[in-house]
Amino acid sequence: MSDFPFRPLIEVLPATVPFVGPEAQERARGRPFKARIGANESVFGPSPKAIAAMERAASEVWMYGDPENHDLRAALASHYGIAPGNIVVGEGIDGLFHVAAQLFIEPGVAVVTSEGGYPTFNYQIAGQGGTIHTVPFTDDREDLEGLAAKAREVGARLVYLANPDNPMGTWWDGAAVRHMATELPEGCILCLDEAYIDFAPEGTAPPIDTSDPKILRFRTFSKAYGMAGARIGYAIGAEELIKAFDKVRNHFGVNRIAQAGALAALVDQTYLRDVVARTAAAREQITEIAAQNGLTALPSATNFVAIDCGGDQARAKAILEGLLERDVFVRMPWVAPQNRCIRVSAGTPEDLDLFGKALAEVLREL
Amino acid sequence: MSDFPFRPLIEVLPATVPFVGPEAQERARGRPFKARIGANESVFGPSPKAIAAMERAASEVWMYGDPENHDLRAALASHYGIAPGNIVVGEGIDGLFHVAAQLFIEPGVAVVTSEGGYPTFNYQIAGQGGTIHTVPFTDDREDLEGLAAKAREVGARLVYLANPDNPMGTWWDGAAVRHMATELPEGCILCLDEAYIDFAPEGTAPPIDTSDPKILRFRTFSKAYGMAGARIGYAIGAEELIKAFDKVRNHFGVNRIAQAGALAALVDQTYLRDVVARTAAAREQITEIAAQNGLTALPSATNFVAIDCGGDQARAKAILEGLLERDVFVRMPWVAPQNRCIRVSAGTPEDLDLFGKALAEVLREL
Repeated sequence: MSDFPFRPLIEVLPATVPFVGPEAQERARGRPFKARIGANESVFGPSPKAIAAMERAASEVWMYGDPENHDLRAALASHYGIAPGNIVVGEGIDGLFHVAAQLFIEPGVAVVTSEGGYPTFNYQIAGQGGTIHTVPFTDDREDLEGLAAKAREVGARLVYLANPDNPMGTWWDGAAVRHMATELPEGCILCLDEAYIDFAPEGTAPPIDTSDPKILRFRTFSKAYGMAGARIGYAIGAEELIKAFDKVRNHFGVNRIAQAGALAALVDQTYLRDVVARTAAAREQITEIAAQNGLTALPSATNFVAIDCGGDQARAKAILEGLLERDVFVRMPWVAPQNRCIRVSAGTPEDLDLFGKALAEVLREL
Repeated sequence: MSDFPFRPLIEVLPATVPFVGPEAQERARGRPFKARIGANESVFGPSPKAIAAMERAASEVWMYGDPENHDLRAALASHYGIAPGNIVVGEGIDGLFHVAAQLFIEPGVAVVTSEGGYPTFNYQIAGQGGTIHTVPFTDDREDLEGLAAKAREVGARLVYLANPDNPMGTWWDGAAVRHMATELPEGCILCLDEAYIDFAPEGTAPPIDTSDPKILRFRTFSKAYGMAGARIGYAIGAEELIKAFDKVRNHFGVNRIAQAGALAALVDQTYLRDVVARTAAAREQITEIAAQNGLTALPSATNFVAIDCGGDQARAKAILEGLLERDVFVRMPWVAPQNRCIRVSAGTPEDLDLFGKALAEVLREL
């Protein structure tokens, strides 16, 4: 027991941090990384139009942002052919998970997710006392049937699925995801994290159907739009579901500069297509580097590639540490058997040259 | 009952929005305001150095912000002569209230605040099912003794006090606040909102004492630092208390551009002093305008002034509406007897000239 009047739930929560930031690692190492390709950020940055919009907005930051995020929601609604009432904008997908957990979860409520899936969802569920049930990946993909079966077994209120998936980069086509949602028990919602959807092949996203009460989707400006540091994302769903966010969300929570940048970024679809093409080229370069070094890159529909290091966690970890020592920031999956891999984000050609040289050195030394 | 598996708490929560933004009002009116002096923003804006830092950070926004907010916390720690471990940075004070509610509040937990105090605190408490007990203002000030007595009566876990206060602008000296904290029941924490402290006379803040487990303070870059739209604030308290925020906060939640701007703003104390002086001059101008129109301005230690309109809510509301019609955005307190007033934020001399003319017109017409 602490000296403070925390909720009993908080007393027993570990002080887990889902991810240690690269800056913390740089401070610990005493020197910066030369290639920052570990957090699935977009090294290609946001559209120059978005940067210009953010620069302009900097001097207007004395004003609170519009709590209704009206202009961005209107633009997104028009982009998708849906109504603004089907969209809520929040402080990145993580921020929206925070609110979703508050809407649905109280101690004892069951939630289903993949073992070794994106940890921040679990973190927010645990923060409201939810009980997390996990299903292993199958062949490095999230197990759609297994997730639905587990949801029925435990009477889950939420099921989490990232499609494409993080940390493996694998994916299902939209029809399979849509079918999986129909197999969930009555009153269970599929939280469909589509952070990487812009990089994925046509057909990976189920068609947006705001009359479907079972799917709550999450999208972001952090990945293909290159604005991770701006903290702006959105959820799409049935109107009643989206309206509930207004009961508890921090209405004035979205940064005004981020709103301006996201709007300009959304409009510049030409730039987005260019980033997607450059990201695909980077994935190919990573795949070649892996092959040249006798390792196998997994197919990816994201802006990163999982590389099978051909052994167990210890081997992957040794390679990861060798790369970090050589100033290349990468990460690795956190549970077996996925943790036989390292995870490398799409970099500039220069980033990936550094990575390739460092990888060859590390493997020679092992 | 809805068709969705919300927590029972959420089902019964009203879809209250603490504040309607001026942009929503502008959209409803079909034209912009000419003077934006209703949301206690700083029309003087942030330091030019902070604007430059934010402009520079715009092109780096592809990177997540440092989740530890290391540099800003180090600078704040040095500014206050405390340890970084006594500071948590969050998405504005509202964002920190969101987390604090999650740490301390579950259904049935008692919280004490002033009737008609800052509504966003209550909003976040209600979002976790807390029971709010209120104490009326006395002579337009929050009633310190009454708050402490109520906390003892109901066994409150948290007591909220804004010093200086919003919406009245009144204040207590630090010694009185410190004494009040000692009168709280065992295991009760004073959430001391010091959003406006930079505008207040010396001695308004109790000395910062991080060995005191009873006071959790909240400060922000939204007011005197002119960065409301950046969403960045911080809490100061005992180390164990601050550490608990790491269990549930959105670690990557603070915008990278905001971090850079806040750091530059903090360093430029010369600019801050200038803003405080210009704000004091604006308060005087508002006070004079009130007097010229036969109304009484209350003393204020903030960047706004409550003007007693000399009648009841209906009279204040009529004046407010007349001002809005004349494109002057102001607000008013929400409960009696404070709602005999309107609340006018410090504006530029031009803003206040507009306000003065509009006020005279409105009063002539009434």
